[in-house]
Amino acid sequence: MAAAPVWSVDPRTGNPREQVAEEATAEEVDRVVRAAHAVRGSLADRTVRAAFLRTAADLLTEAAEHVIEAADAETALGPARLTGELARTAAQLRAFAEVVEEGAYLDIHIDHEDGSRTPPWPDLRRYKIPLGVVAVYAASNFPLAFSVPGGDTASALAAGCPVVVKAHPDHPATSELCASVLRRAAAHHGLPEDVVSLVHGFDAGVALVKHPLVSAAGFTGSVRGGRALFDAAAARPTPIPFHGELGSLNPVVVTEAAAAERGEQIGAGLAGSMTMGAGQFCTKPGFVLVPAGGTGDQLIKSLTDVVSDSRSAVMLDQRMRDAFVAGVRERAELADVTAPVTPGAGGEHTVSPGFLTVPARRLTEEGPHDALLEECFGPVTVVARYESEEEITAVLSRLPGNLTATLQTAGEETDESAARLLAALTPLAGRVLVNGWSTGVAVAPAQHHGGPYPATTSTSTSVGATAIERWLRPVTYQTTPDALLPPELRESNPLGLPRRVDGHRE
Amino acid sequence: MAAAPVWSVDPRTGNPREQVAEEATAEEVDRVVRAAHAVRGSLADRTVRAAFLRTAADLLTEAAEHVIEAADAETALGPARLTGELARTAAQLRAFAEVVEEGAYLDIHIDHEDGSRTPPWPDLRRYKIPLGVVAVYAASNFPLAFSVPGGDTASALAAGCPVVVKAHPDHPATSELCASVLRRAAAHHGLPEDVVSLVHGFDAGVALVKHPLVSAAGFTGSVRGGRALFDAAAARPTPIPFHGELGSLNPVVVTEAAAAERGEQIGAGLAGSMTMGAGQFCTKPGFVLVPAGGTGDQLIKSLTDVVSDSRSAVMLDQRMRDAFVAGVRERAELADVTAPVTPGAGGEHTVSPGFLTVPARRLTEEGPHDALLEECFGPVTVVARYESEEEITAVLSRLPGNLTATLQTAGEETDESAARLLAALTPLAGRVLVNGWSTGVAVAPAQHHGGPYPATTSTSTSVGATAIERWLRPVTYQTTPDALLPPELRESNPLGLPRRVDGHRE
Repeated sequence: MAAAPVWSVDPRTGNPREQVAEEATAEEVDRVVRAAHAVRGSLADRTVRAAFLRTAADLLTEAAEHVIEAADAETALGPARLTGELARTAAQLRAFAEVVEEGAYLDIHIDHEDGSRTPPWPDLRRYKIPLGVVAVYAASNFPLAFSVPGGDTASALAAGCPVVVKAHPDHPATSELCASVLRRAAAHHGLPEDVVSLVHGFDAGVALVKHPLVSAAGFTGSVRGGRALFDAAAARPTPIPFHGELGSLNPVVVTEAAAAERGEQIGAGLAGSMTMGAGQFCTKPGFVLVPAGGTGDQLIKSLTDVVSDSRSAVMLDQRMRDAFVAGVRERAELADVTAPVTPGAGGEHTVSPGFLTVPARRLTEEGPHDALLEECFGPVTVVARYESEEEITAVLSRLPGNLTATLQTAGEETDESAARLLAALTPLAGRVLVNGWSTGVAVAPAQHHGGPYPATTSTSTSVGATAIERWLRPVTYQTTPDALLPPELRESNPLGLPRRVDGHRE
Repeated sequence: MAAAPVWSVDPRTGNPREQVAEEATAEEVDRVVRAAHAVRGSLADRTVRAAFLRTAADLLTEAAEHVIEAADAETALGPARLTGELARTAAQLRAFAEVVEEGAYLDIHIDHEDGSRTPPWPDLRRYKIPLGVVAVYAASNFPLAFSVPGGDTASALAAGCPVVVKAHPDHPATSELCASVLRRAAAHHGLPEDVVSLVHGFDAGVALVKHPLVSAAGFTGSVRGGRALFDAAAARPTPIPFHGELGSLNPVVVTEAAAAERGEQIGAGLAGSMTMGAGQFCTKPGFVLVPAGGTGDQLIKSLTDVVSDSRSAVMLDQRMRDAFVAGVRERAELADVTAPVTPGAGGEHTVSPGFLTVPARRLTEEGPHDALLEECFGPVTVVARYESEEEITAVLSRLPGNLTATLQTAGEETDESAARLLAALTPLAGRVLVNGWSTGVAVAPAQHHGGPYPATTSTSTSVGATAIERWLRPVTYQTTPDALLPPELRESNPLGLPRRVDGHRE
């Protein structure tokens, strides 16, 4: 059987641009994973890994023009957004270089022998070691930051794990360019290029997660695709960690006081956040609780004005566009749902942003309106108008897990009601915002980009310094002579690493 | 249908002692989980949790005589061992009280707003919050330390999670006693007793892991039982973390030099470790690579002498005894396998310790001898005699994941061969020992009791301070007014917690 061709497609026209590669067969996946596994030892040196990550950032920046051109042609995300995304991606690679150099991620604990304990302690020394080959499933909506050179790859390489990326079919040319950048960066430091590989094709992705030499997987994408791969990872003879970011509604609660004080500003902010990148953010605010009646009307008017002025947009691919059009149509037909700005088809290849409103009481019990509590990927949000705080909490209690949850309060409002609402939002999400918008995700140590299922299939983050923890496992050495210990655990701390010794930080 | 009775059985005679309880129906499991979920907020206060854990330790110690009597009658582990286990269990509860009070486990990160970053950072503050109700599946072989009042329960309560324990059927009376101790300790501090509950019965255990309000599970037991529950946890509509410790061979490598220098001592140490607790330790050294020929013979002789002198022992239940007898018989019948001390049936209810030897070359390729690479629960170990270092590494490369791996070297031997062997053992286990025995597991911050599958179904530990991490998830607050933040994250650090602020530890 001839290998299936992989085409780069222009989403603005639906026309194929060029054949980029061929889908990997099961044999090719096996070969690539074995090659990655064989060179895993080459990533043992932290200094080399950090330098490799920095060179990757440099080479990506050097290749920016070419990469952004390819990415725009394949994704229609536009040069401005992609320029920002490339800068973010380069900064992310450099941030993980710093994480590797600092070494706090090794979580070194040393307990000296202590016969006074129950039972007595022998000399114990723990740090974290890489898991092995990591499979990365790239996302459609961030062709750089959550794709080949993105956070999963950067954090896995930082941990010392070779990476095999399953390219997203929406940007195969960009993926090839970026993989080549990463492999050149590796070679620049004398590392085997096989520390980063790329495969294309749905079947290749399934074969990858099932491969016995793959030790963990990272995924960003849909609930359906992510859950299928999660299930495959769990069903292996030897199950592996599967860190998937699958989907999120990202609820927002606007208090009465906030709507009264700055309804217009909140409406405009919401419009900007939900239409950003054609609504193709996993952190898009997709569900907003707004007071019913006069207090909320100013917000709705402002939202209406700004969304009406938003241009129709090209989505990442035709299938997503069609799913969006079908999804908003289905939701708009529900009883008591209105569309102050009707979302739906724009031209043949575009969509029009819009939003729906519904009385919150329609959502307090199971029923057909539950479709409004499911993510609809694209430039739409659902505004539920509430009559009371009880209605807010009743609806919130019915939401699935989320990446983010947001509270819009009045100025410095810190009254009991705001505190209660924040307490109701916290169980729903991995990141809780007050008076902000969820779409931006800073690459910072205190970041957490993850949340209760289906937002994430684990308790981990895919953004920020602690994303590295996903690709490591602890190992403790007991009563091991200093000369046999890894340098990280030797008594004299020759590498000058942060450690916790007998309960005290050094 | 009448509820199934739960009997306490005397393993020394096989006779029932008393009816202790009834198996929980699905409705009862649902009621218990809902009750636990309803009171989860009562565990929010760290000071109260720490006091609760200390009182639990005190009350367990006060009840020692009664608890040990029941445990011995049900498990035949003997008062000496159980006295030590109770002391360890109490110390473990107190250790988690310290972990809670210190607060490092909250892993607090604060990044102040920084517009110079790419993209800019808003104010971000992260800590960890409890996951919710935790299901604990108690082990047979540690009726205290890995059962109702054991490490899973202590760490989950420390994290702020209510616990529902599925009792092990081998010690239901001990389980009831211990649950009552924990519930009294809760009440002593004004906590609802429902923060700890106990259910009996196989079906109850299955219903528990599937309950929508159960957020995570901890398990210690067999590969078969643990994998079935792991699969059920992964197959839920909302999958949950399942931290299972399933099984381990715990390989030991004795170098030529070590065998030459102190073969007698190693043989005696091995005999003590493998027969301890009738070989019913998850850390029992079950597979030992010993040099062939004269160098290893002294070790074998010493092992033979000490094991021959070991008394026959009662196992935890008749099913385990029968499985041991069948398991050692099957292994002893393999070609080239000899039994210098034949393990097997003792009396009607007892087993005789023993060990098997086999040439290591029989194990370098797949075949019937692979049975020797599977854990056999009970007082037996397999000694594989190797001809070369190549044979050692060939056999090691075929081993499944383990809790521990041990290297026996000569004195201060730190030559290249020892370093190579340690490097070959590290990928196999979560704890690597040099010149020690794996059976003891210290409850220390630097401990790691876990390892590659099937040793553990996750990368976590079930012993030591970091066991608490299993029951937590991070949450980040973004641009949240100080008055609305949880006290742990407020700017002034009112609780005096260890934190990492803008990259610096406080």
